[in-house]
Formats: sequence, C-alpha cells, structure tokens
Amino acid sequence: MIRIAILGAGGLGRGMATVIEARKGFQLVALADRLGYAYNPKGIASSVLGRDLESVADLPEGLTSDEAILDLMQAHGDQIDAIFMALPNLPVDFFAKTIEQIATETPFQGVVVDALKRTKAVELLLPLNELLQEQNITYVTGCGATPGFLTTVAAVAAQSFAEITAIDIYFGVGVDGWEKYRATVREDILHLPGYNAEIVAAMSDDDIKALLDERGGIIELVNMEHADDIILELAGVCDRSKITVGGKVDVRHAKKPCSTTVTMKGITAFGQTTQHQFIVGDETTMVDNVCGPALGFMARAVEMHNNDLTGLYTSADLMPKTSAEGMRLKANELGREELLSL
Amino acid sequence: MIRIAILGAGGLGRGMATVIEARKGFQLVALADRLGYAYNPKGIASSVLGRDLESVADLPEGLTSDEAILDLMQAHGDQIDAIFMALPNLPVDFFAKTIEQIATETPFQGVVVDALKRTKAVELLLPLNELLQEQNITYVTGCGATPGFLTTVAAVAAQSFAEITAIDIYFGVGVDGWEKYRATVREDILHLPGYNAEIVAAMSDDDIKALLDERGGIIELVNMEHADDIILELAGVCDRSKITVGGKVDVRHAKKPCSTTVTMKGITAFGQTTQHQFIVGDETTMVDNVCGPALGFMARAVEMHNNDLTGLYTSADLMPKTSAEGMRLKANELGREELLSL
Repeated sequence: MIRIAILGAGGLGRGMATVIEARKGFQLVALADRLGYAYNPKGIASSVLGRDLESVADLPEGLTSDEAILDLMQAHGDQIDAIFMALPNLPVDFFAKTIEQIATETPFQGVVVDALKRTKAVELLLPLNELLQEQNITYVTGCGATPGFLTTVAAVAAQSFAEITAIDIYFGVGVDGWEKYRATVREDILHLPGYNAEIVAAMSDDDIKALLDERGGIIELVNMEHADDIILELAGVCDRSKITVGGKVDVRHAKKPCSTTVTMKGITAFGQTTQHQFIVGDETTMVDNVCGPALGFMARAVEMHNNDLTGLYTSADLMPKTSAEGMRLKANELGREELLSL
Repeated sequence: MIRIAILGAGGLGRGMATVIEARKGFQLVALADRLGYAYNPKGIASSVLGRDLESVADLPEGLTSDEAILDLMQAHGDQIDAIFMALPNLPVDFFAKTIEQIATETPFQGVVVDALKRTKAVELLLPLNELLQEQNITYVTGCGATPGFLTTVAAVAAQSFAEITAIDIYFGVGVDGWEKYRATVREDILHLPGYNAEIVAAMSDDDIKALLDERGGIIELVNMEHADDIILELAGVCDRSKITVGGKVDVRHAKKPCSTTVTMKGITAFGQTTQHQFIVGDETTMVDNVCGPALGFMARAVEMHNNDLTGLYTSADLMPKTSAEGMRLKANELGREELLSL
C-alpha cells in the first residue's frame, strides 16, 4: 500500500480521498490544511471529510498548527510514501518553496505529485532537480488534468507527426456552487483579463460572488498561462508557443458548459496535414480528471523511486499506472506458468 | 544519435526509414530481410529503399545471408543501439525466439521495440524478462499502432475511471494496392473467420488477390486477437475480456474506409458512467501511427537503458518521447538560467 499525505483539504483534496478509496493499493494516512493536520497510520476515511468540517485539525486525530505542512512532515515524513499537493491558487513559488523545505528540513524521502497549473510554478521547480536527487525524492510536476491528464494524451498523440503545428486544450467544467471549489475557481479567475494572483487574493468571497453573478456564473478563459506548454516543450513535443489552453467554467451547474477536448494538429513524415482529437466524457468531473491521473502518476513514480530514479520529472515523462498493485514486469520473479495465469 | 537497425524491410520497415529522417536524434545504420542485410555506420538513406529494390542485400553495402538477422547482429550488434522489429505476419513465437537468439548469441546490448500484433506473441515474450535483464537488453513489446499508440492513449484515458467497463479499438486503414504491405495485409487476413497463420502462409499472392477481389478490396475484422488486451491487463487497467479490437481495411484506396477510434467506457469514483473517445486524423497512415510511436517508445527505452532499467516492458509501461535529443531532466546538469532559456 502506498501511504499518502494530501496537502490541501479543499474540494480537490477531499475529492482525492474518495478517489483513493476507489483504487487499489493506496491508503490515505495524512491531510494538512491552513489550520492544522491529521495523521493516522490506520488510514483516514473520506466519509469523515464532510462539507461541515472546517479543518482537518478538527478530526479526532487532528492537531492545530500554523505550519501544518512542515509540522506534519517533520513528525511523520518517514511514515509517508507519497504526497499529493492539492493546492491551486497559491503564489507561483509555493510549490518550489514547499518542496525545498520538505526536502531539507524533514525526514521525508518519497514521491511527490502536484496538481499545479501555472507555467512559472514549473519553471521555479526545475532548478531543484539536483537537491531532490540528493534528498532521495522523486517529484513529478503537472499531474492534474491540465497540465497532467490532457498533456500526457497530447504527448502520446504527437507521435504520429513529424511536426506539431498546434495543440489546443479547451476544457469545460461545471460545478454546482463555487463554494465547493473556492481555490480552484479563484485560480481560474486570476487568468481573466485584468486579474492576477495578487488581485484575486485581495478579493473577499463576496467580491468573487459578485464577479460570478455579473457573468451569469460563467467564466470563459482564453490563452491561459498553463504549464502544459512548458511540459510539452521539455518533452520535445513542440515549442511552447504552439500550445494554447482555454476553457469555460460554469459555477452554477454540475453539467459542463462544453465538452473538454484536446486537438493536436500536425504534419506527418509524408507531408500530410491532419489532426487527432481526444474528447473527455462529459460525466467525468474535475476531481475525476485531476485526482485519478494524479494517483496514476503517483503509482508510476513510486516504481521509479524504488528503482532509484529520483529528481524532477514532468507528467509527460511517465505513463500513469492504474493501480499500485498488479504485476511489475521489471521486478517480477515469476515463472512463465504463473505469468500466464495472471 | 540512436543507431537503429530495422529487422524487416517490407512496407513497414521502409516506412520507418522515412520516419527516422523526419525526427531528431535517430540514425538508420542497418536493415535485414529474408535475403540478407545491409550495415553502414554512416547511415542508410530512405531514398535507396525504393519499391524496385527486392532485398537490402542488393544495396551497395548489402550482403546475402540465409540467417540475416543473426549474421547482422553477430557482426555489428555492438554498434547498434536499438532494434525495430518491423515484422508482421510471422509465427507467434518469432519474436521470442529471435530476441532469445540475439540475447544469447550476439554482442548486442541495447533496446528492442516491436510492432507485433498478437496476444500470444506477447505471452511468449514474458518469460524472457530475466534473460533480458542478465544480457543488459531493454525490450519494449507492443510499440506499433495497435498495440502501442492506441493502447497507450487508452491506458492514460483510463485514469479518470474507478472501473473500466469496455475499451473498444476500431481502426480504419486504407492502402492503394495491397502489394505495398503484403505482410501486414496477410497478418490481417489471418484474423478473418476460417483463417489462421498456417492457412495464410500456405496461400500464394494470387490466392490473396482472389480473396481480396471477392471482398471488393475490403477486409472487415472483428474480435481480433490483438495484444492490446494482455498489455492493458498487465498494466492493471482492466481484465483483457473487456477489450475488443476490430477494424476495416481497404486495400484499393489510400483513403480510410472509416476513422480510427478508441472508445474507453467506465464508471467514475462517484458512480457516473461515461466514455472518453480518441479519434485519429484520417490523413495519418499506418506507417505514421506505427513507426512514429515506435520511435517514441524507442527513445524513452534508451533513457531507461541508460538508467540500467533492463528486461521486458510493454508500451503501456512507458511514455513515448518525441525526439532522442532534448533535455532530460533526470540527467541535466544545467543551472536555472540555462533551463529557462531552453
């Protein structure tokens, strides 16, 4: 079992607790939020993370703390195999600063996956490769939906082409009530023209509500600074200028305002111009498409960590893996008969 | 540069020569077919592999041989980084027997990717994991279009679901004249009801032509024994019984008789039933969708081999990589400024 800590206990973090229970080989043992943390080596059930729970510090095993992430990892870092950073809408240097602190000030030596969004946040992680290797940590960045799930599909699909001319990611997200995903919605708003992280941070919940009311609950986003661009550029797929990310968010209806699509346009080795398209099922939620893939990347990263592959990677560097159990060809000691009977 | 040997110089092998030239970091140095082999450390251009060339033994650097693969690898195995097995329509034990011979009787220690089709061919490779590790070979099976490209997309797409209920691969292939891809068309015919490998092997080219004429040049295939099933089962995605592969081949028109699609149906962690769909661009050819991904898997496997990850893998275990050049985060020694200027 992969023992998981979730950093951030908003809509995404709590959704991850449910997804963990639906997949094999994962166990949630810790959560941290602004007010404190909870650690339980026997596991923490998603059912205790109801909407009326203000902070995980209020759980029976909870502790209040001003530095919850650091305190949790100092106390239990060596009892945690993998961290999921479920923290949208934080300053772009948050991920780099946090992992640097975890790597240098706590006993944690394992796997980290994040669901960050912005290109700059990835740029700030790149120089930490060597430190992470020294500290025996395998960090995979961009493991959510975009970047993450959709980026990885694009990186596979790109293989038919000799040259990629455009990768367009367009997402539809529907949530019935923005209050469930405050941080994610705030992160989306900062991509609107005239907004940025500082402006959004200074807005009260009432300000956000007023902005949403003004737009009929719909946020339409174009040319977002999403890290799909740097991740696909680092993977050698194409220059980041050819990648666009946009979408439409409806914060009043669970039904998506449009289907999420990835369109990959390119030129083949034989000079033909064409496009592949990936269409995401409308009934999958943001949590399904962020947390499911994040767990998949985590399972694969644990395999890598077990093989002493440490340092910084992006989601486009590795295949996600459905379950943390199951046969690992690399390590298997089985004979032919056993293999064939699997 | 990754120095590549292509085993098999039919339509697929010759197509690969063109795709290699369109991608960065790869060099074709050897080819082998039934009648002989050619090796040139300075590279072999795709332009010399015209349709009027009967065998690569007829090239200026060519040599005739009854055991071309073995002779090539014995003479030059240590000057080859990676092998592409472009050999459809051979007995199912061909791949296992060939790699076992290469591993034990030649100096080759590198990467092998295949574009095999049948489930049994993969089953016969599984027991070779340990031998391949001992001989310092990284073998990735199922690196063509199906299995390979489409399988890998399915393995990524599966991540949104708690349970996969069906994965349906349906391909459309159009070729203007079956003579260009004799082995591939024969491999397709053996999946028709009433046919098998032995029956097809005994058929003359005239027999094949008569069969194609009878069907108006269209071969429609259902419930094919394709290794997508075992590969996704080994990756933990779902039981192989939930995976179907079929398609329609038109051997008289380059235009595809239908678009190639992968449809992934599943149930989310929140109990919703839905499906994702991947639609392949009609203008991409079989060569684009087999050879492009095969090169991508090869580039990634070379990275793994450099990291001492040897043995047997499937395409669903690793992300393809667009170019053999470009930044490798794992190994980079660059500082922040250099990284950001990439």
